[in-house]
Amino acid sequence: MLTEYQRDHIEVVLVSPRNPLNIGAAARAMANFGFGRLAVVAPYAPNWREARSAVGAPELLKDATEFTTLAEAVADCTLVAGTGTLAHRKPEQPVVPLPEFSPRVERELARGGRVALVFGPEKHGLTRQDLSYCHVLVEVPTDVRQPSMNLGQAVAVCLYELASRASFPNANKQDESRVIPSAVSGSLDRLAEVIEETMLTVDYSPVSIREAYRHDLRLLLRKMALAEPDTRRLMGLFRRILWRLQHANNNSGTSGKPK
Amino acid sequence: MLTEYQRDHIEVVLVSPRNPLNIGAAARAMANFGFGRLAVVAPYAPNWREARSAVGAPELLKDATEFTTLAEAVADCTLVAGTGTLAHRKPEQPVVPLPEFSPRVERELARGGRVALVFGPEKHGLTRQDLSYCHVLVEVPTDVRQPSMNLGQAVAVCLYELASRASFPNANKQDESRVIPSAVSGSLDRLAEVIEETMLTVDYSPVSIREAYRHDLRLLLRKMALAEPDTRRLMGLFRRILWRLQHANNNSGTSGKPK
Repeated sequence: MLTEYQRDHIEVVLVSPRNPLNIGAAARAMANFGFGRLAVVAPYAPNWREARSAVGAPELLKDATEFTTLAEAVADCTLVAGTGTLAHRKPEQPVVPLPEFSPRVERELARGGRVALVFGPEKHGLTRQDLSYCHVLVEVPTDVRQPSMNLGQAVAVCLYELASRASFPNANKQDESRVIPSAVSGSLDRLAEVIEETMLTVDYSPVSIREAYRHDLRLLLRKMALAEPDTRRLMGLFRRILWRLQHANNNSGTSGKPK
Repeated sequence: MLTEYQRDHIEVVLVSPRNPLNIGAAARAMANFGFGRLAVVAPYAPNWREARSAVGAPELLKDATEFTTLAEAVADCTLVAGTGTLAHRKPEQPVVPLPEFSPRVERELARGGRVALVFGPEKHGLTRQDLSYCHVLVEVPTDVRQPSMNLGQAVAVCLYELASRASFPNANKQDESRVIPSAVSGSLDRLAEVIEETMLTVDYSPVSIREAYRHDLRLLLRKMALAEPDTRRLMGLFRRILWRLQHANNNSGTSGKPK
């Protein structure tokens, strides 16, 4: 079973949920399995208000945090797991079947990380862009003839899996000073910005396909399994490169070197 | 993963469901995890009609069978599993935590049995009498502070567990002639009737506590793990006893023995 500590380090993130009943059901499943941290991204305001003010809504729904973007909602997380089925898409990141997901979460929490479990809107699930913020795609093993799950039920199944399968012997007691923490999602986003600026500065790729390489870069950085100090080193390197590029441009006429 | 054969031998039974949305959600979870056999006991008629005629209702909901009593709904089943949490009751039968339930189901199906997974009404769950028809109580491991699950979510979690954990290597291929099948629930009910008649005939227990010993007898017979031939033998024995008792009474005046 999960301990209070581990449950505090797992976030449930609902992206643009529409139906107040589904929001309530998701929150109830969290309460059933002892999870307390809910974040909601860009909800439809009237329905979100309705869900929060419903009679009998769990406390955690009232305490939920609201974000404008998924990037902000998962900025503190070191493992971001999108959920869904693979029926209609070709995944761009590693796919983990839900029954094999708990060990991955355990390892991440044992390293002092923070995990986000991200659920998409009812109709279409997570978009390709949402998924580019995810390290892995957790697949619920549903029947090919009826792959798409109701939101509240998908949350219940995923949290049941974590609550009943994961075990964390001594995870609280381990010597944290010896563990190198994984990079949080926000650090990867900042690193991506500096790399992107560098790519633009050196005319590496045309502005017209900016969105496309930004997408690929997000996925690449999440595939690399960087530790937090790695991102700081890479950030330092690219900032230095940028500085030099700008410096070189400014001084290009006075360097004394032949053109 | 479960095969088509095994899914055909697992029934989902909803006892007196009230909310059409919950009935729909339960049916949808069944379709998601590839289960097809739904039985409903004494549903509230207007809501049951509404659930079945809902737009997008899965085929299996339209094919569902309706019963008046739980005893009839599970009469063909050899393992009847009630679901719930233990928050407010002292269980009278073995409790199996849901994460440990799949092996039990596998064994039962490998013997050629049929399994029923029984869910109670939304508000109160299964009654003590409902549970007396159950061989085991499957407990969903929920948080003590919020133990009670939404019906649709409870069905989803239980079926996810079965669909993703159970595996049945060669279960279809085994030599069925060598396997002694477990007693179906209906045989146990018929055996209970004969035993009860015997108990009444010999004035074993007063009629006033008839309901109480009927209850205990149901539980006892389910605890005994009888095979189908065992029930036939026991039935034969009690019928013989009954016949003799009646014969003895009829002939008591003519036996020639001194009073």
